[in-house]
Amino acid sequence: MTGVVEAVGSAVDDLSPGERVAVGNIIGSCRRCSACRQGRENACKTFPTLTYGGLDPHLGGTTRGGFSTHIVVDRYFTYVLPETLDPAAAAPLLAVKYARALGARVVAFTTSPAKRDAALALGADDVVLTRDADAMAAAFRSVDLMLDTTGVAVDLAPYLRVLAVDGTYALVGIPPEPLTIDPMDLVVGEKRIVGTGSGGVPVTRQMLDFSAAHGITADVEVVPPDRLGAALDRLARGDVRFRFVVDMTGL
Amino acid sequence: MTGVVEAVGSAVDDLSPGERVAVGNIIGSCRRCSACRQGRENACKTFPTLTYGGLDPHLGGTTRGGFSTHIVVDRYFTYVLPETLDPAAAAPLLAVKYARALGARVVAFTTSPAKRDAALALGADDVVLTRDADAMAAAFRSVDLMLDTTGVAVDLAPYLRVLAVDGTYALVGIPPEPLTIDPMDLVVGEKRIVGTGSGGVPVTRQMLDFSAAHGITADVEVVPPDRLGAALDRLARGDVRFRFVVDMTGL
Repeated sequence: MTGVVEAVGSAVDDLSPGERVAVGNIIGSCRRCSACRQGRENACKTFPTLTYGGLDPHLGGTTRGGFSTHIVVDRYFTYVLPETLDPAAAAPLLAVKYARALGARVVAFTTSPAKRDAALALGADDVVLTRDADAMAAAFRSVDLMLDTTGVAVDLAPYLRVLAVDGTYALVGIPPEPLTIDPMDLVVGEKRIVGTGSGGVPVTRQMLDFSAAHGITADVEVVPPDRLGAALDRLARGDVRFRFVVDMTGL
Repeated sequence: MTGVVEAVGSAVDDLSPGERVAVGNIIGSCRRCSACRQGRENACKTFPTLTYGGLDPHLGGTTRGGFSTHIVVDRYFTYVLPETLDPAAAAPLLAVKYARALGARVVAFTTSPAKRDAALALGADDVVLTRDADAMAAAFRSVDLMLDTTGVAVDLAPYLRVLAVDGTYALVGIPPEPLTIDPMDLVVGEKRIVGTGSGGVPVTRQMLDFSAAHGITADVEVVPPDRLGAALDRLARGDVRFRFVVDMTGL
C-alpha cells in the first residue's frame, strides 16, 4: 500500500509528516533470528507479521493493511516512496517489466489468446499460448527461469518440460492446494522448483529504487472504497487490467 | 559395473585388453544436443540409453547392463578404473563419505535406530532419528542441503522444515509415485527442490578420480550369480550393508 505519513514516533528522525511512503505485505518480524539479521524478514524463524490477514501481535485480532484509514507501522518496515513513482501505480508491480529491465528475454505463457497483445504491450518478447500443443512442444527446454505468478495449483509438468537443463521454476504466487510433481520431471535435466513470497526489507528498498530508476509502474484501475464490492466481483471474473488499487483517501 | 576389457574397436587407441574399466548407468546419448555437447549426457534431449532396462538402439530389446557376461560399450561411456579402487567396492559409492571428503558437516536422517551406529561409522557427524519429534524440532532450519537417496515418495514436509533459508532438497533417488508438496513449505524460507540422477561423463570421471584420491569405497557384499535370488530377497527386506555386488566372473 502507499500513503502519506501523518505522525511519527519520537525515535523516528528520518521521516516527517506529509512524506509519501509505501508499506509491503510484512509489517513486523522478530528482528533477532539469523534470517532477520540478514534482512530476510520474509523468512523470519517465528514467521513475519503480514500486513493483511496477519495476527496483530500488539492489539490482537487480524491485520487489515490498506483497508484502513490509518495504520501504525514500524519505521523499519516503511519505505520512502521514490518521488518519480505514482503512488497508485507503485502498489502492484509487474514481473514482465522487471524481467525486461533486468535484461532478460521475456516469454509470457498464458491460457488466454486475449492476453497475447497485452503481454506484448507490457514488453514480452514472445507469447506462448499454453493450450497450443505445437507451441508448447516448440518451447521445449527453452526457458531458464519460469516465474509462476498464477497463485493456483497448475499442472507443473508441461512447464517443467519447457525449462532448460538446470532451469528453475519459481513459485511466486501461493496456491492454496498442494503441488503434485512427477520426480522424473525434475531429475531429467536437473531442474528445480523454488518458492518465494515477499522479499525482506533490503530487497524491497532495492526494488522500489529500481522501479523508479527504470520507470516501472503497473497498469492499474483506481477504485474508491464504495465501489470495492463491484471491483471484487470483477476480480473474481478476471476482469481487470491489471490490478485494482483502492483509493482510501475519501474515507 | 566394473570389468576387464576383452577387445577394443579399431578406433580406440587409449584402452587395451586386460585393463580394468567401469561403466555407469548411461551407455549412450545423442552426443549432439546442447546438453550432450556440455557433457551433460544424463540430460540428453532425446533421453540417454540406460545401462539397465534401457531401450537398446543398436540391437533392439532391453539393455541388461552388468547382468551379462559381456557388454559392448562406446569408449566415451567407459571409464578407466583408478588403480587404487577395488573393482567391487567402486560400483556403489556412498553419499556420506563424499560429503565428508568434500568438507561438509554431515547429518544422517534415518527412521531406524539400528542404522545410527552404521551412519556414524561411515563418517556422519550426527544422526537424527526422523520418528523422534524432539530431534526433528531441534533440527529446524539446520541443514543447507538435504540429499534424499531413499527412492521412495516420503512426506517431504518435515524435511523441508529442517532445511535452512535458501536450503536445497535434492532428490537423488527417483520415487515411482508423484511428490506432493505444500507450497508454503517452499515459499517460507525460499527453499528449493532439485532432481538429479546419474551425472554426465565429465563429472563421472571426476567422481572416480575423487574416490581414488580420497580412498572412498562402498561397503559391499559380493555375491556369485547363483545366489542372486537369495540376495534379491534380502534386498527386499533391507538386509544388506550396504550394497550387493554381483561377481559375474564365474559365468
